[in-house]
Parts: sequence; C-alpha cells; structure tokens
Amino acid sequence: MSPILSVDLGGTQMRAALVDPDGGILLRHAEPTPRDASCPDALLMLVSEILEGAGVDEAVIGVPGRVHYGSGTLEHAPNLPPGWIPSLTEENLSEVLGLDAGLANDADLAAVGESRWGAGRGHADVVYVTVSTGIGAGVILGGLLAHGGRSLAEVGHTIIDRTALTAGAPATLEEQGSGTALERIAAEAGLDRSGAGLDEVVVGGDPTAVRTRGGVAGAGGVGGGYLAHLFSPEVVVVGGGVASAGDLLLEPIRAALARLGPRGLPAPIDVVRAMLGDDAGLAGAAGWSDAFVREASRV
Amino acid sequence: MSPILSVDLGGTQMRAALVDPDGGILLRHAEPTPRDASCPDALLMLVSEILEGAGVDEAVIGVPGRVHYGSGTLEHAPNLPPGWIPSLTEENLSEVLGLDAGLANDADLAAVGESRWGAGRGHADVVYVTVSTGIGAGVILGGLLAHGGRSLAEVGHTIIDRTALTAGAPATLEEQGSGTALERIAAEAGLDRSGAGLDEVVVGGDPTAVRTRGGVAGAGGVGGGYLAHLFSPEVVVVGGGVASAGDLLLEPIRAALARLGPRGLPAPIDVVRAMLGDDAGLAGAAGWSDAFVREASRV
Repeated sequence: MSPILSVDLGGTQMRAALVDPDGGILLRHAEPTPRDASCPDALLMLVSEILEGAGVDEAVIGVPGRVHYGSGTLEHAPNLPPGWIPSLTEENLSEVLGLDAGLANDADLAAVGESRWGAGRGHADVVYVTVSTGIGAGVILGGLLAHGGRSLAEVGHTIIDRTALTAGAPATLEEQGSGTALERIAAEAGLDRSGAGLDEVVVGGDPTAVRTRGGVAGAGGVGGGYLAHLFSPEVVVVGGGVASAGDLLLEPIRAALARLGPRGLPAPIDVVRAMLGDDAGLAGAAGWSDAFVREASRV
Repeated sequence: MSPILSVDLGGTQMRAALVDPDGGILLRHAEPTPRDASCPDALLMLVSEILEGAGVDEAVIGVPGRVHYGSGTLEHAPNLPPGWIPSLTEENLSEVLGLDAGLANDADLAAVGESRWGAGRGHADVVYVTVSTGIGAGVILGGLLAHGGRSLAEVGHTIIDRTALTAGAPATLEEQGSGTALERIAAEAGLDRSGAGLDEVVVGGDPTAVRTRGGVAGAGGVGGGYLAHLFSPEVVVVGGGVASAGDLLLEPIRAALARLGPRGLPAPIDVVRAMLGDDAGLAGAAGWSDAFVREASRV
C-alpha cells in the first residue's frame, strides 16, 4: 500500500504528513493557518512539498468541526475561517489535490489513530476524549468508528449541570471541564501562580489550586461517566493539552467512573492517557478507510 | 422468509409474539413474570402455544438490561429475577427453544422496530428514547444499530446535574426525568390530584402540576440534548408510558433541543412520539438481523 497524505486543519495551525499504512509518520510540515488566504491556496501551499514525488493517491483531511459524512461536506466549524467552509468538501478537495480525498472530524481521526496504534490498541470498544481549550470525542465500537450521517463531534456542549443552567451559570462539559474552564475558574478563585503552570501549583499543595483542579477534573469525570454509560467501552483514552496533567486528571475520572459509571461490569473501565499526542489524528488517516463505515455497506 | 418468534422479558410481564418479516404481529401471548419459576420453564410455558405448528426457526429475546453482544450473554438486569441471568445466554436459549436465538437489549430492539416500521421510518439516523419508570435508549446510525461489545443500555444513569450530585440530591437523567421522578416530585410538591392523572391536572392549569411537569420534561430535554449533540440524528423518537403525555412532554424537549442542541444544522432535529407503543420491541425482532452489526463484519 502507498503512503497517505494526512492533513490536520486547525484554527491556529495547519499540519500535513506523509503516513505509512501502519500509522508511522514519514514526513511532516506545518504552517500557521492563514486567515487571509483561500482554503485551496493554503492547502496547496501546505502539502506541495510533501506530495513532491511521493506517489500518494489518497488523502484524509481532518477538520475541527461537524462533518456531514453522508455528503462529504463540513457543516459547522466555528474555529476555521468562515470562508473556508464551503470549499471543504470531499469533491472539491479531491479536485484541488488531484487525489482521492476524504474529509474527517479531527477527534474521530484521533480516535482511529489511538485505537489502532496508541493507547487503545488491542481493544475493540474505545472512547477517545480530547481535552484542551475545548472538549471533543470520537468513539470506536467493534473496531469501527461510530458515526451516522454526521460525525459525533459535539460532546463538549452537553449540559452536565442543570442547576447551573437554570441559574445562567456555566453548565456544559466544556464550560466546566476544559482547559479554558480551568483558567477561568483559577482566575475567579484569585489563584496567584507567579508564572507557574496550574498543575505545578497543585503538586506544590496549594489548596485553592487543588480545589480548582479537582473541580474541573470532576466535570471531566461526569463527562466520562456519560460516555461510559452509553458505550461501556473497554478503555477511555484521554488526549489533548490538559491530558499532560496525567494522573492529576485521570485519577478523578477513574474515581468518578467507579462511583457513577455502569454497574455490574466484569472489570472496571480503564482510563488511560493518549500515547500519540498531537500526532494521533495524523496517524489516524492511515486507519481511516478500514474504520469508517461506508454508506454502501449499511442497510 | 419465515416468521420470527419475538419475546419481551419484562420485570413484571413476559410477552411473546409471532412476527412476520415486515414487523407485523401475527399472534401474541402474555404472562406475568413468575419470579418463582426457572427461566427456561417460564419461557417454554410462554412460547409453547405460539410455536405450535408455526414453522419458526429464529427467535429474538429482548431483556431489560445490559447485553454483552460479543458473547451473547446478559450482564446486568436489576429488574429480572437474579436467578434468571445466568441462563439468559444465546447458547442456552437456542438449546432450550430448539431455534437460533438472539439476545437483545429491549430498548435496542424497540429502536430497530420504530426506525424500520414506526416513527423513525425513512430516516437513517434515529435516537429512540423510552421514558417510563426508567429511561432507556437505542441508537440507529446509518440504518444500523449502534453497539459495541455491549448494548447502549444505561443512558438513564447519566448525571445531568452536577450541583445536585454534589449536594447528594437526585442528579441522574432517570432521577430527574422519568415517570418515577414525576411521581416523586409531584408528591414532594404536595400536589392533590384527587385520583386524576398528572397530565389531566396539568391540562386543567394547576400551577404546581404545570411546574412539576415542566421540570421533569426539562430534564428529558437535557437528556435529549446530550444524545442530540453526540449523534446529531434526523429524528428523536420518544416512547414509553410517559410519552402518552404527547406534546406536554415533546414540546419542552423540542424547545431544549433548539436552545441547547447542535448548532448549524440545516434543519432542526425532529422530536416525535413513538408509533408502535408496547409493540416496538416485539416488531423490532423482525429487523434485528439486518440492523445488528455482526462481529464478523467488523475490523
């Protein structure tokens, strides 16, 4: 099999890689997302070097938004330049790149990457959650990506606190459990970090920092609990910038799953840190065509 | 195709039917669930009349609990006699009935029935939610049942109110949004119904009843919102005893989805009442083998 062109179109950075069929990254290139260029121009500039003489005939483009898989179009992506959205279709991308191009939600791609070659390896049912400024998720069931006509992109906007919602306070998983929430709550608590990262202050034992961290991780635990109740996966893989907190984040999620998660499972659901870091989505491109359930194979 | 034997093993009632390949019910029989009989005896007594001379070679047994589809066993079913659980395996059921028997979560079966022959007909992506004493759900994506090694059975136990959880108050979707919650909250509010159903009192305009109904429906809206964020279905089908409230229940869920649900959809998600009533699961048996994703077809 030939290597695959894998692209991650983020709101601040665009990355491209040449990926071998086992998810290994052979070549890579990154550029800031140019908000003043057209999408085709920016994309061609990004990938031209990688495509030179590489013999690639397939590309997968990851995007931070809701993909309508039925039509191969991008439906909603608040962090990309609005002008790009209409040109991000599989049809247009295939034409622009001269390749067979697939469009994928970035968390779905990372879920495929982590389940095939990362922390979810060897498991058939994997929930991947990415926690950074926002919160996203991708779900693998029986080795296949869970999706319908659309990607399962918007877990972060779920209400996890109805009392807060009624009071007009932050009430979604993202508003209570993301990196953005962590910064906001730390600032509201008047936490003086003197330039240190929050997690360093937590390790140092500052009670306000510990309480802030615990509260935000607890929101993550509630979010993890709802995905666990729904999918009863063998493993929950946590990635994204906030996952670098390691056990500071993972222990409260494990505790919440044990307390709030499904009853009567033969073994507790494992909660582990992602292994592939920022490369999960890039690597996932190599597993995409195997993991994606084509409409044609469906009833 | 031959008709299928369809069984719904509930905690208080067991029902069996002969179902034609289009989900039509040809014959039916019901018995109270005998908590003092063994499962094989109770099941044989229930189905013997239906099987007489019917030429059936396939059966689907629906159960109120988490099914491990990977092994065809029942993992957790708090409402069935505990002694029944070990005998509810596909292997054992096939032997007892002398048929090829499948084991299915009851909400999954009802989701298949409603999506093929009921209120979800014509849609590829359908979320089915049943609201009665408890809350369950089944999800159809691209015409196929969403499941991994296990059924997606426990949506009702999801935390929807973190503030309430911290306070030790009822905090799950089921505790705030089910028929049981409705009765509890009405009693706590001191509602005098003089024997009338709550929904009659709501229609009569009693402010306490309206507030109670609205609060419980609002919990349903939050639950519907989280399923909508995850699956972006074309339609949410609401069944179960509480669904008989019709628009009293559905309007607040529609309003919550419009306010809290996914952004940027080309059309709002439709929220409709189930059409097949108690027969959704029985009918679903006829669509089961088409909708169920066999392990063998997976990566």
